[in-house]
Amino acid sequence: MPQRQLSLNVFVFPGGHHEAAWRHPDSDPTRALDIGFYQDLARKAEAAKFDAVFFADGPALADNIRYAARFRLEPLTWLSALGAVTERIGLIGTASTTYYEPYNLARLFASLDHLSHGRAGWNIVTTSAAQAAQNFGLGEHPPHGDRYERAREFVEVVGKLWDSWADDAVLADAASGIYADTTRIHPIDHAGRHFRVRGPLNIPRTPQGRPVYVQAGASDDGRFFAAQYAEAIFTAHQTFASAQVFYADIKDRVAALGRRPEHVKILPGISPFIGSTQREAKALEAEFNALIQPEYSLTQLRNMTGLDLAGHDLDAPFPRHLIDTDTRFGVASRFKLIVDILDREKPTLRQLIQRLAGARGHYVFVGTPEQVADEIEHWFVNGAADGFNVMPPSLTGGLDAFIDHVLPILRRRGLFRTDYVGRTLRDHYGLPRPEVPSPAEVRASA
Amino acid sequence: MPQRQLSLNVFVFPGGHHEAAWRHPDSDPTRALDIGFYQDLARKAEAAKFDAVFFADGPALADNIRYAARFRLEPLTWLSALGAVTERIGLIGTASTTYYEPYNLARLFASLDHLSHGRAGWNIVTTSAAQAAQNFGLGEHPPHGDRYERAREFVEVVGKLWDSWADDAVLADAASGIYADTTRIHPIDHAGRHFRVRGPLNIPRTPQGRPVYVQAGASDDGRFFAAQYAEAIFTAHQTFASAQVFYADIKDRVAALGRRPEHVKILPGISPFIGSTQREAKALEAEFNALIQPEYSLTQLRNMTGLDLAGHDLDAPFPRHLIDTDTRFGVASRFKLIVDILDREKPTLRQLIQRLAGARGHYVFVGTPEQVADEIEHWFVNGAADGFNVMPPSLTGGLDAFIDHVLPILRRRGLFRTDYVGRTLRDHYGLPRPEVPSPAEVRASA
Repeated sequence: MPQRQLSLNVFVFPGGHHEAAWRHPDSDPTRALDIGFYQDLARKAEAAKFDAVFFADGPALADNIRYAARFRLEPLTWLSALGAVTERIGLIGTASTTYYEPYNLARLFASLDHLSHGRAGWNIVTTSAAQAAQNFGLGEHPPHGDRYERAREFVEVVGKLWDSWADDAVLADAASGIYADTTRIHPIDHAGRHFRVRGPLNIPRTPQGRPVYVQAGASDDGRFFAAQYAEAIFTAHQTFASAQVFYADIKDRVAALGRRPEHVKILPGISPFIGSTQREAKALEAEFNALIQPEYSLTQLRNMTGLDLAGHDLDAPFPRHLIDTDTRFGVASRFKLIVDILDREKPTLRQLIQRLAGARGHYVFVGTPEQVADEIEHWFVNGAADGFNVMPPSLTGGLDAFIDHVLPILRRRGLFRTDYVGRTLRDHYGLPRPEVPSPAEVRASA
Repeated sequence: MPQRQLSLNVFVFPGGHHEAAWRHPDSDPTRALDIGFYQDLARKAEAAKFDAVFFADGPALADNIRYAARFRLEPLTWLSALGAVTERIGLIGTASTTYYEPYNLARLFASLDHLSHGRAGWNIVTTSAAQAAQNFGLGEHPPHGDRYERAREFVEVVGKLWDSWADDAVLADAASGIYADTTRIHPIDHAGRHFRVRGPLNIPRTPQGRPVYVQAGASDDGRFFAAQYAEAIFTAHQTFASAQVFYADIKDRVAALGRRPEHVKILPGISPFIGSTQREAKALEAEFNALIQPEYSLTQLRNMTGLDLAGHDLDAPFPRHLIDTDTRFGVASRFKLIVDILDREKPTLRQLIQRLAGARGHYVFVGTPEQVADEIEHWFVNGAADGFNVMPPSLTGGLDAFIDHVLPILRRRGLFRTDYVGRTLRDHYGLPRPEVPSPAEVRASA
C-alpha cells in the first residue's frame, strides 16, 4: 500500500491572508483585481502539484473595506478563468446555500466541472454575514439552525440534479439521429420544505459525477452536516490538541453514518511565516504586524465576538469579563477559538489583535522551513490533519517561500506528491467518483 | 466622419444553428461539451475581428434533447473560460431576470467584466420556457406582463449595484493604509415591489462601468423595455420589410425617451448557407434539411404555437385554421413570425418545418458570398439593421465559410473593421461608458 500523503490546497486571498499584507512589499495591491495575477498564482500552484486552489466568498461587502482589499470577486467566474489556463489543479469555490437557488448553483458548478475536465469543488457555506440578508430582501439573517436545515435540503436537491443524467445518456449518434437517450435522463421531482424542483438538470453529467463537496462548519450543526456530506473539511485550530479532538470527532461521526473515514479529508488552515532562521521568521511576522491598523482589527474582532472595543487601551489586558460565552455572534467556530485564546494566554488587546491578524483565526506558524515541515508532519501523522489549506500571509511572496523551501522537505519525507497521478480533483484527494443511483434505488429512497 | 460600420456577433450554439447540424459532417457532436471547441471558436471569431460571441440560455432542459444537443452550459462560467484565452472579443451571455437574484447576477457579470478587462455583455431575458418555473418552486410560469415588470425593477437594481462604487473608490494606498475611500462607495437602499437590496456591491466598479445591456424582446412590453435599457437588440425577422419596420419603431421609441438612437444597435439574426454558386448553396441547405427529424421539428413547432401536429400529413397544406392568432404561446415574436409565413407563403407542414429548422425562426439566407454580402449591406444601409447576430448553420463549418468568403467582401466595401480599434465591447459597438451618477443625482431620483 502506498504511503498516505498530504492533501494541500492554496487558499487564495487578495494580497494575502495577513490583514495588512496588501501594504507589505511582498504583495502588489494594484493587481488585486487583475485575473492575470490569479492565473499566475494558479499556474504556480499547479507547477508545485498542489491539490487545489481555494476561494472564499460571501454575498455582501465587508465593513472594513476602508483598510484592506476585502472585495469579493465572484468565485465561479474567476475559477473558470483559472481553469482555462491550467490542466490539473483543483478549483474549489465557495457558494452559499442561503442565498442561491439550487438549480442555478447546480448549473454553475456542473459547467465548471465540464470546462475544467473534472476539477471543480464546492465549498458549501450557509453564510455567516448578517449583511448578506439585506442584499436579498430578507429583513433578518436566518438563524443558524434554519440555515443548516435549508442547507441540507439544498445539498440534497443539487446532488439529485447532478445525478439526473446517467453517465451514458449522451449518445450523439448522428446516423440514427438520437442525441440523448431520454430513458437515462430523469426529472428529480423534489418537493420539500424549502424547495420544489422538477429537474432534470439541463447539463449532462459531469466528469467527476459530482464536484467535490467541501465544508467548513465547526458548530454542532456544522459537524453533523460535514459528517453527512463533506468530502473535505476546511477547519480553524489554534492548537494541535484542538485539531486532534476535532479530527477524531469528525471521523467518528463519519463512521457512525456508515461512510468511510478516509473519504473525508480534514484540512486545517495554516498560515506560515517562513525564515531561514527562527529569528528571521519572527522578524518577518513583526514586519507585517507593524502594518496592522487597529481600526480594522477592532472591526474584525467586533464581527467575531460582538464586542466593540474602540477606545480601549491596546496594551491593557483584554477585558475577558465582557465576553459572554453563552452568546454566539457571527461564526461559531471563531468565537470559541477566541475564548480559548483568552483563557489560555491572557493576552492584551494588542496581542489578541496580532494573533488574529495573521489569518482571521487560523493557525499562524512562525519558523524555519524545517520547523514548518515538522509541524505539518506532526499534525498529519498524529491524527490532527489529512492535509492543510495553506494560507500564505502574503501573495505571492508567502506562497513562493512555501513552495521553494517547505515542499522540498515534505517531498523528501515522502509526504507530498512529486507529480499528479490523476486528472480530477477526486483523483488528487483519493475520493471515489459517485455512481448515479439506479431508478430502483431512487424509488426506494423516495 | 468615419464610415458607419457593421456590428457583427457570432451566436454560438452547440453543433450549429440548423436543428440537424450536429448530424452533418461539418460539425463534431463529440466536442459539444468540450470547452476547447468553444475556445477555438472564440479565437477564430476574434482573429476575424467580430464584435462579440453570444450565448443563449434558459434554466430548464429542452424537451427535445432526444434529437439534438439542446443542453445548456451555464454562460457565465463558459464565457469566463473563453475570456481567459482571448483579448479583444466581446462576451455576451444570456441570464434571466425571472430566475436570478439581482445581487448574484450583478456579481457574476461584474466579475466577467473585470476578468475580461471590459468585454462583458448581458443579454437580458425574462425566460419564455414554462418548464423553468418548475425548477424554481413556482407552480406556474409568471405571465408575460409580470415578468417584464420584475425585469424592469431587476435591471434598475443591478444598474445601481454596478454604480455603487465610484470609479476612483479604490486607492490601494499602502503608505496611509487606506485601501478604499468609503465616501465613494454607497449602499443603494433599494426597496421596490419585487426586491429589497441594501448594497453596495462587493466588487469595485468594472472596466466598462456597466456591462453592455443586450435585449431580445419583440412584444410591445419587450420593445418598450428595449427602448429604455438596451444598447444592443437581437431580433428575428424573416423579411427585410419586417426588419425595417422594427428598426424604425425601436429608433423612434429610443429617441422619444431622450436616448441617442445610435446608442442602440439593432442586430437581426442571420443564418447563411454559403456556396460558390447559388446551386451549391441550395444543395448545402438541402443536405441539412435531409437530416431533419420531424419529431423534433414538431416539438419545436408545438412550443412556438401550442399546436400538436404529430400524425398530420407533412406534405399537405399547413392547417392554418387551427392557429388562433389571438392566443399567444411561448415567445410572442416567434408566434407572430410563423403566422406571417403562413399567410404569406401558404406552405405545407414540411415546408414550414424546413423554414424554421435553419435557425428557429431567424432569417436563413442561401446564396453566394457576394449575395450574402449584398443582403447584409442592403439591410444595413436601408434602415433595417446596424449589424447582425451571425448564426452559422453549422459550427465550425458555417463560420469558416462566412469568415473566409463573406467578411473579405464586406471589408472591401468598407463595411466591417480590418482590426479592433478599442479594447472593450463598448468600444467595439461605439457605446459610451456610463458615468456613476453623483450622490446628488441619486438623491434627486429617489
